[in-house]
Amino acid sequence: MALTGKALIAQGGGPTAVINQTLVGVIQEARKHACITKIYGAVKGVEGIVNEDFLDLTQETTHNLEEVALCPSSALRSTRVKPDEEFCKQIFKVCSVHDIRYFFYIGGNDSADTVRIVNEEAEKANYEMVCIHIPKTIDNDLRQNDHTPGFGSAARFVVQAFKGINLDVNSLPGIYIGVVMGRDAGFLTASAGLAREFEDDGPHLIYVPERPFSREQFVEDVREVYNKYGKCIIAVSEGIRTESGELFLASLKKDLEKDPHGNVSLSGSSALGEALVAELKNANIANRVRCDTFGYLQRSFFECVSDVDRNEAREVGERAVQFAVWTEKDGSVSIKRTGNYSVDFVLSELKDVARVSRSMPENFINEAGNDITDDFRLYCRPLLGSGVRSTARLRAPRVPKLLNTEK
Amino acid sequence: MALTGKALIAQGGGPTAVINQTLVGVIQEARKHACITKIYGAVKGVEGIVNEDFLDLTQETTHNLEEVALCPSSALRSTRVKPDEEFCKQIFKVCSVHDIRYFFYIGGNDSADTVRIVNEEAEKANYEMVCIHIPKTIDNDLRQNDHTPGFGSAARFVVQAFKGINLDVNSLPGIYIGVVMGRDAGFLTASAGLAREFEDDGPHLIYVPERPFSREQFVEDVREVYNKYGKCIIAVSEGIRTESGELFLASLKKDLEKDPHGNVSLSGSSALGEALVAELKNANIANRVRCDTFGYLQRSFFECVSDVDRNEAREVGERAVQFAVWTEKDGSVSIKRTGNYSVDFVLSELKDVARVSRSMPENFINEAGNDITDDFRLYCRPLLGSGVRSTARLRAPRVPKLLNTEK
Repeated sequence: MALTGKALIAQGGGPTAVINQTLVGVIQEARKHACITKIYGAVKGVEGIVNEDFLDLTQETTHNLEEVALCPSSALRSTRVKPDEEFCKQIFKVCSVHDIRYFFYIGGNDSADTVRIVNEEAEKANYEMVCIHIPKTIDNDLRQNDHTPGFGSAARFVVQAFKGINLDVNSLPGIYIGVVMGRDAGFLTASAGLAREFEDDGPHLIYVPERPFSREQFVEDVREVYNKYGKCIIAVSEGIRTESGELFLASLKKDLEKDPHGNVSLSGSSALGEALVAELKNANIANRVRCDTFGYLQRSFFECVSDVDRNEAREVGERAVQFAVWTEKDGSVSIKRTGNYSVDFVLSELKDVARVSRSMPENFINEAGNDITDDFRLYCRPLLGSGVRSTARLRAPRVPKLLNTEK
Repeated sequence: MALTGKALIAQGGGPTAVINQTLVGVIQEARKHACITKIYGAVKGVEGIVNEDFLDLTQETTHNLEEVALCPSSALRSTRVKPDEEFCKQIFKVCSVHDIRYFFYIGGNDSADTVRIVNEEAEKANYEMVCIHIPKTIDNDLRQNDHTPGFGSAARFVVQAFKGINLDVNSLPGIYIGVVMGRDAGFLTASAGLAREFEDDGPHLIYVPERPFSREQFVEDVREVYNKYGKCIIAVSEGIRTESGELFLASLKKDLEKDPHGNVSLSGSSALGEALVAELKNANIANRVRCDTFGYLQRSFFECVSDVDRNEAREVGERAVQFAVWTEKDGSVSIKRTGNYSVDFVLSELKDVARVSRSMPENFINEAGNDITDDFRLYCRPLLGSGVRSTARLRAPRVPKLLNTEK
């Protein structure tokens, strides 16, 4: 007989454009199983669980859920709190009091660790509860996953942004730096490379945390490109590192915020971009040097979603319920690539996803450490989804000069 | 008999998302008139004219032109050069040598002045040439126009961005500042107000150049909102001014770039945002204070265009040719609002558009100078175009607590 009781869902960590597809996938699929008696949503992730801040999602309409599914950012709100063992004990206590038998937590690798510990508590107490972690992150750095929900849409935003920048810089040439999210993994920054169409399109240079960043080499790289094309467009990760592995941003010795995980706060600060602009202005390569730090726009923009990402985000949510009800195994839902391009969904061990992360494979970055490879292009293109237009240029021939005057 | 000869088109100033609709409108409509023997496009605006850098657009395919029309940023490239009288004499000289009889220049009020002077030169020389200025600017600050092509799409981008930010900040609350383009006029920043849907949605505060900006009042405004909602989202123009009329950014005494028009370079610098973040952090209102300077993304993003804006941008281009050929009058194409919502296109005097600009009308800004009014909402909404979705929130009821524990 199926394990009968309530389901509890929560969302953790930073928002993505498709995180509510996953939430709604869990809810809609759970409502089809009689063994799941009610569906609770915790407001503000694990904080909400210990405070018993629950919404009874069984009383939400199907239609409104589908409207919410189309919105970016965690509808159940979120938290950056990282639970320690004591906190997880409290989470388990609340679950047992409310007869929660199915626990679904949507988040990154920190969230997977929370699920792992809560699951251990339940086992210690001999309390039957199926605990499933469901992947989510724009950084694309969860292990066991070919890619993660949230990444494709953020990558699409970055690509569309750089396509527009290519045209903008063509009309008024100069040097342009786009600072893209990416603390440890450069996948999102690397995706900018897919904005290139014409031979002289940017970004001409791409710098990711996986390769050491050197000021001097950076300036030389830019000078070389600018001399060749009369313009230079650069994509750089927030998390680029010096040779010693220190955050380049930290090496600038600025007063930096930290979040509860001890991570230096990278987003919402333009310090990195400003520092790189200063380097290039000092190098006297071009008059016009500009920088945009994409910030929050790349994870929440309301009109830029990859349909591939949206579909997979929905599927991992529904899949989580199917795994939970039919196998009663604990684990983390993972996306595997089975063809180019097709995927399948499996349940991985929580310990193989929790706390660990991954970086870009070697073959995705060129030898010089300043560009992507065709391997990465092949990997990334399907994730951007359909409907990404090409840019066009005028091809009309030149008119012969009559005056031969130059100004 | 119709004035027979070649047409010359150029684009000036900053890019917009729909500027090529106008360009292509001129070309396609011009090709229908036998009196226009060839259509030249000057590369890099007025610079290209004096250098005779012309493309023969008569030899461009119709299809490729339509593809280019869909791309943001000046396909003929652009310039920030401001021609003086001598420069304009040279422009006229080149035109006369090439038998240019129809001159179309797409740009802002600086461009309108160029057209005005070139037209005077032609008249002095008794050379028959019809000179038409065609409006373009994301700042929406041309006189004689209800609104200008480029504004609606940029406003749409700003609205979509703030809708996403609303959801992002709901999921992880704090204070968020979005710095929006707007040197002298606050229309684009004000458009952010149309992102509000729910009563507690942001932006809660909007600061435009038309009203003096005070640090102290700003901090108090933010404190009041944050105390009420537990979050605060702010939209602020790059060009906000102090009581004395000086750029707030300049009052920070930073080392500032200037462009050839003598304008302090505002875009591509996050100095303003960083300064405002520092003010708020010092005021100790909230832990989480973030800022994004939207920068170039708001004028070139490749997947966010208002269909109303696109249609009007196309129309002013085609209209310019119709006016030129059938009336042979010089002037500036202007958009007039005739209903809510409908428009008509007229030809204004060049002198009424050249060099002058306009600000937001008083009734668009509230008395406190930190928000928009319903008059502005009515004005702006049609310009955003169709397909702007609403956000949705969960409405499920709360579950009664069983433990009554707080953490």
